[in-house]
Amino acid sequence: MQIIKRTTLKQKPEKGERLGFGQYFTDYMFTMKYTAEKGWHDAKIEPNEPKPFDLATSIFHYAQGIFEGMKAFRQPDGKIGVFRPNENWARMNRSATRMCIPNFPEDVAEEGLETLLKLEKDWIPTEMGTALYIRPTIVATRVMLGVHASTEYLFFIILSPVGSYYAHGLEPTKLLVEDFYVRSSIGGTGEAKCLGNYAASMKAGELAEEKGFDQVLWLDAAEKKYVEEVGSMNMFFRLGDEVVTPALVGSILPGITRKSCIQLLRENGYNVSERRVSIDEVIAAAKDGSLKEAFGTGTAAVISPVGLIRYKDCDYEINGGKMGDVTRMLYDTITGIQYGTLPDKNGWRKIIG
Amino acid sequence: MQIIKRTTLKQKPEKGERLGFGQYFTDYMFTMKYTAEKGWHDAKIEPNEPKPFDLATSIFHYAQGIFEGMKAFRQPDGKIGVFRPNENWARMNRSATRMCIPNFPEDVAEEGLETLLKLEKDWIPTEMGTALYIRPTIVATRVMLGVHASTEYLFFIILSPVGSYYAHGLEPTKLLVEDFYVRSSIGGTGEAKCLGNYAASMKAGELAEEKGFDQVLWLDAAEKKYVEEVGSMNMFFRLGDEVVTPALVGSILPGITRKSCIQLLRENGYNVSERRVSIDEVIAAAKDGSLKEAFGTGTAAVISPVGLIRYKDCDYEINGGKMGDVTRMLYDTITGIQYGTLPDKNGWRKIIG
Repeated sequence: MQIIKRTTLKQKPEKGERLGFGQYFTDYMFTMKYTAEKGWHDAKIEPNEPKPFDLATSIFHYAQGIFEGMKAFRQPDGKIGVFRPNENWARMNRSATRMCIPNFPEDVAEEGLETLLKLEKDWIPTEMGTALYIRPTIVATRVMLGVHASTEYLFFIILSPVGSYYAHGLEPTKLLVEDFYVRSSIGGTGEAKCLGNYAASMKAGELAEEKGFDQVLWLDAAEKKYVEEVGSMNMFFRLGDEVVTPALVGSILPGITRKSCIQLLRENGYNVSERRVSIDEVIAAAKDGSLKEAFGTGTAAVISPVGLIRYKDCDYEINGGKMGDVTRMLYDTITGIQYGTLPDKNGWRKIIG
Repeated sequence: MQIIKRTTLKQKPEKGERLGFGQYFTDYMFTMKYTAEKGWHDAKIEPNEPKPFDLATSIFHYAQGIFEGMKAFRQPDGKIGVFRPNENWARMNRSATRMCIPNFPEDVAEEGLETLLKLEKDWIPTEMGTALYIRPTIVATRVMLGVHASTEYLFFIILSPVGSYYAHGLEPTKLLVEDFYVRSSIGGTGEAKCLGNYAASMKAGELAEEKGFDQVLWLDAAEKKYVEEVGSMNMFFRLGDEVVTPALVGSILPGITRKSCIQLLRENGYNVSERRVSIDEVIAAAKDGSLKEAFGTGTAAVISPVGLIRYKDCDYEINGGKMGDVTRMLYDTITGIQYGTLPDKNGWRKIIG
């Protein structure tokens, strides 16, 4: 793979500096182009520097684009670990299909990522809870205003050293159940990791933040009855002896941490269901005490305990506002596999370098 | 207003050349920036040339952006006419509010547009059916990966000489009623002119084109029962003595051509209703002969007759596949006002220069 070197490297964040999420970016990026004539081509590592875009480029007008999120973790032996990257490449190509973007060669993307990570190894932060966030993205680059799928695309991977997704770290989050705004509907783009889903979620997110909540808990578009997800996280509820996560009905992102948690729960003897779960069921369980735990899962948020849910102006505290046992077990197991401190029975940890 | 001149001008399309839609762009653009500290500032005319964008810019990840579409028409006396621009600025600010983008000063945008149009007057094509398409756009420009509204934005207006939106011009279009994919739902972003709505519509659009249709006719997300719009056009149906257009329930773009047509129809004594109209009602009317006409309205498509609708694998021809009288009246009136060949009783034509 071609590597175009830069003359001056950026200054890395100081050890111990608060990294936040997606604020620092490394020196290099992986890029690959698509044209109708050549297909995907020109895969290379190049300096992560601004690129010129004509303002009639279709990404600025019709948002035809998709992305993924992964993390690279510093292993105890100094090597690099990435969590289930093949799952992300596969999902990215499913998103591509939904958004009329030509599928990309997953092996070239993986080779690009590995080459990039080896080059940028020193950017991986070492403190517990930190990681090097990986953002593969495809954007439509044709200069044209007709509302049609583009015939040209740019695939890129940029890297960002990050801390915890929530400013308050592992402290349980507060969710506001949203019963007016909608994230996605069946037949929409909710199961694709496409750009527009995120802009669409901002208004409700801002209103929730103004009321002191961390995130919005979305309900289904048709009936505002069933729990969907949290935009940046899939949801799990421990209801009595059952751990429930909303079924992937088409409007919910099929999370890789979600999938991993379902498997881990089953391996640990829990009764896990993927099914539709109504907000009324969750609230009734909160009232009668059978809602033992609630948590979100996602690459950025990892496993994030939920301590409080507000629905129709009533607040429901969960597990005394503290992280529960199942949440803790999943957090410890997933992060143990990611950081290389626990055995990786399922082969989820890809070691690079 | 500051004007930064370019040294070499582009070659304009030859007179009579097929312009298509959004393929040629003029020499200059209007731009204005937003930062949290300064608000909207730095309004100017500058060369329409590519600008550098960091690939971590939020528009490439979360599609926080909106746009508008207007047209400038060459008047018989050589002046420039624009159709109801204040309506577009007002709608753009409503879209901004929905997408968490700070409202912009409409007078500065209008002054920018007028300065730009005067400078680019020679780019306005003169053939009937052509116009200089105006694309005001706002994109989020903060370099940051957190899913939050940006704190920085770029507002720009680019211009493109265009022909008719459909390759076949005024020949009636064929619409495929889409009963799986969804454009938008109530509580979603359908009434905002935001970028993500358009990417979300591409898959169904491609499938419809493969079957020989021009566009998709969208149904409501919740029940797949009510007619919504056509992505690039609002819909009207002449059902017996009533002209019906779907009510603006929140998932439909409030079209300015739509609004103008409703007013023109009322002024001409037609019985016009804005109400929910089910696809079953349309199909029943097509079957019993009371569906006299169907047409779409939009800035790009102007007034576009619909000659055929396919629903659940059955084709329904409308008005023998020909443009009907009401459609023709509206087309003639709207274009007459736009091109300055008819009196402008309602003050819709803004003359510049």
